[in-house]
Amino acid sequence: MNVLWVMAHPDPRSLTAFLAAEGRRALSAAGHEVEVSDLYAMGWNPVVDAADYAHDPAERFLVAAAAKKAHGAGALSADIRAEQEKLDRADALVVQFPLWWFGMPAILKGWFDRVFVQGYAYGLSAPDGRPLGYGEGFLSGRPALTVVSTGGPARLYGGRGIHGDLDELLFPLQHGTLYHSGATVLPPLLVPGADRYTPEDAESAAKELRERLLTLWTTEPVPFRPQDGGDYEADRVLRPEVAPGRSGLGVHRA
Amino acid sequence: MNVLWVMAHPDPRSLTAFLAAEGRRALSAAGHEVEVSDLYAMGWNPVVDAADYAHDPAERFLVAAAAKKAHGAGALSADIRAEQEKLDRADALVVQFPLWWFGMPAILKGWFDRVFVQGYAYGLSAPDGRPLGYGEGFLSGRPALTVVSTGGPARLYGGRGIHGDLDELLFPLQHGTLYHSGATVLPPLLVPGADRYTPEDAESAAKELRERLLTLWTTEPVPFRPQDGGDYEADRVLRPEVAPGRSGLGVHRA
Repeated sequence: MNVLWVMAHPDPRSLTAFLAAEGRRALSAAGHEVEVSDLYAMGWNPVVDAADYAHDPAERFLVAAAAKKAHGAGALSADIRAEQEKLDRADALVVQFPLWWFGMPAILKGWFDRVFVQGYAYGLSAPDGRPLGYGEGFLSGRPALTVVSTGGPARLYGGRGIHGDLDELLFPLQHGTLYHSGATVLPPLLVPGADRYTPEDAESAAKELRERLLTLWTTEPVPFRPQDGGDYEADRVLRPEVAPGRSGLGVHRA
Repeated sequence: MNVLWVMAHPDPRSLTAFLAAEGRRALSAAGHEVEVSDLYAMGWNPVVDAADYAHDPAERFLVAAAAKKAHGAGALSADIRAEQEKLDRADALVVQFPLWWFGMPAILKGWFDRVFVQGYAYGLSAPDGRPLGYGEGFLSGRPALTVVSTGGPARLYGGRGIHGDLDELLFPLQHGTLYHSGATVLPPLLVPGADRYTPEDAESAAKELRERLLTLWTTEPVPFRPQDGGDYEADRVLRPEVAPGRSGLGVHRA
């Protein structure tokens, strides 16, 4: 299988880089191909701009529509097309980053902003005209694993830890982006205490990562609710009898 | 009062830009000063890099520690220091953006990544040595309003809408960043259907925005739980008797 590994850390001597190398080695040893987008090493530009879309500066710049038009015309910037081609080749996706201000580093957020354009990653329809999304999309059938390192200890990212439940902090990526695109979204791997790790901690994290990578295709995914699975009304609001009386991000998991 | 308005949209003819102009006009008319960081217009660089911190490339680059050291030595890049000086002058903060992949555009995420460094925005202590955070910090006493436009309709961002509850989607910004920094965090203003708005919609959104801006100092804030208010154990996990049996981001609101 072909695995696309997207990562964002400015230091090639970081724990992130060490784990990426260990993970890629484990995948290769198991017979997989690994393609890497090391965004800092690539000098990736994360800023969405009209210049990416061959957009006429005299017209109002509606970002999603301009991107869709450029995608359809094969006119997206070459660096965006190169990432889309990597995605097209990938049978699985690993997204690895240090958690900065409870989200992705800007360089990685801008990978999704620029690469996941309308007409390629969303706004798609099934042959019968039914709009795709949340459970079905361009990443259908492909597992996606998020690997996140944090400075703080794991308990702060637990269900009642003060930083907030990690699964829900990652909801914009896991549900809004990857699950919306159809990926088989796996539980994230948390690597806590990243600035204070010892060689033993690093080896232990690498061992856990290897186990997660070798079970990419067999791990039970996060049970997000598919948009057409019957849990939502036609207007995409959860039916009253599903998770009755509850609200918040947790209601979108079965 | 002095209001810092941070915004991110690539098109000066966008609804975002229109609302920003209307909002600034309303604040000025009410006697306030408004300082603007229009990140696209400024060509803001959102990528955290060792070059910002006068970091010795021979040493491992621990981002938070390197940033803290550079901040202490007055050696942060000039563009970062300029934004910190705007924050120092501000009595209130407005953060305005279109929701892209359920978060901030990369250029804005990277404003927080680069400007909110350790030693300036976190890792601070009270005079008695108590660590500050979640309710107390460098933004203490200053209201912060997030203004978010979306392509989709409001119901999809409600408590049971398929995109996820807006308050919880914004938790990394509202709680993890602004409330952690001590700001008085106000309920966000949602501007839905931004790609399809009519002149009437725009005027109605501008009216709502003006009302929110003129009540910045009197609006009831989001009732996040302060870290030292008694709801958390010493290890920063919610006490069992607070929101008993519940978990997820919602437990951090009183």
